[in-house]
Amino acid sequence: MGLSLPSPPRPVAAYVPSVATGSLLFISGQIPMVDGQVACRGRVPGAVTVDQARGAARQCVLNGLAVASGALGGDLSRVRRVVRLGVFVQCDDGFTDQPLVANGASELLRELFGDRGTHARAAVGVNALPLDATVEVEMILETGAA
Amino acid sequence: MGLSLPSPPRPVAAYVPSVATGSLLFISGQIPMVDGQVACRGRVPGAVTVDQARGAARQCVLNGLAVASGALGGDLSRVRRVVRLGVFVQCDDGFTDQPLVANGASELLRELFGDRGTHARAAVGVNALPLDATVEVEMILETGAA
Amino acid sequence: MGLSLPSPPRPVAAYVPSVATGSLLFISGQIPMVDGQVACRGRVPGAVTVDQARGAARQCVLNGLAVASGALGGDLSRVRRVVRLGVFVQCDDGFTDQPLVANGASELLRELFGDRGTHARAAVGVNALPLDATVEVEMILETGAA
Repeated sequence: MGLSLPSPPRPVAAYVPSVATGSLLFISGQIPMVDGQVACRGRVPGAVTVDQARGAARQCVLNGLAVASGALGGDLSRVRRVVRLGVFVQCDDGFTDQPLVANGASELLRELFGDRGTHARAAVGVNALPLDATVEVEMILETGAA
Repeated sequence: MGLSLPSPPRPVAAYVPSVATGSLLFISGQIPMVDGQVACRGRVPGAVTVDQARGAARQCVLNGLAVASGALGGDLSRVRRVVRLGVFVQCDDGFTDQPLVANGASELLRELFGDRGTHARAAVGVNALPLDATVEVEMILETGAA
Repeated sequence: MGLSLPSPPRPVAAYVPSVATGSLLFISGQIPMVDGQVACRGRVPGAVTVDQARGAARQCVLNGLAVASGALGGDLSRVRRVVRLGVFVQCDDGFTDQPLVANGASELLRELFGDRGTHARAAVGVNALPLDATVEVEMILETGAA
């Protein structure tokens, strides 16, 4: 698809980007960092449009896949299934289109991984996110041997 | 208990209702859909009472069990344990009774499954939810062979 | 470290403090209860400072470890890895330092468990939490035989 993964963002705090346990790989919550800056800030829809937020959700997934790639020795073919996404959308009170925003994340995963990319999901609104990011996405992946 | 499961709600977006990995079944976040409509909208307690929201949380669980039933070939006896609930309550600032709302979900599971229905839980407030739903509930179930 | 674990807080509702499934132990969302009272209430930063909230996040972890200890027969050496933290910070709109608050939880785990204590994490802001708690922390632990 002509996408290249970014360098995995460094966590902004005292935790690690991912933890493997059994066949599951837990990816920490990702915000739309690009080149060390948060590329999309503020609440939907007052400060940020739904389309911009969709793009931010897509960027969160790219960052999460960069983390996964690092954990899997650079081999994303070891992702057997995307299990779950948690999507938090920073939004104004009364905003109801969190699913449209979260689709930016979900659709990219389906494009990249096909059926293996489809996942369970919880998408909710929140009033504030780290570094004023518009979206935060966490992932659980099922992984296999190389 | 005289309850009949609804048809499993279709996800409103590009994801799937559930994903199985190992012995775990992840159920996507459910809102209180009834016959294709969100049966309980708005924030607690300004627009929706705690009792109404409790009922909405119960409906979320019914919808989640309908999803689980579909994933388990119609055989909910394959649910060995309800592992975790995540409960998001759309509420006004300063509302503090999210646990009472979430009990609508938890108590139904205990009634239906007994000790197997008891679960770990995180219940929080949020300022906005998809389609203006009052409650969203996601579940992780442990499942076994038929 | 001279820390003593509190008595595990009783859930305020119809659920259980933890559920084990396979090698995973899911700990319910913990608030900063101390001696039966919520030790830190209100939103960051208007009503509660970041430092106070960090301390509250640390207390949440202590309470979660008390729960884990109870589930593991008092033997926390059976914790092989802290897998994931979910950290919810009750905050004013526009607050962006949720990671600093969540570090109160993360740093304690690293101090107590070393590399085994490092974890994946999602930290978000919310507009309201149970009992007006400033922070809620849920945990997934990987456990082993005694």
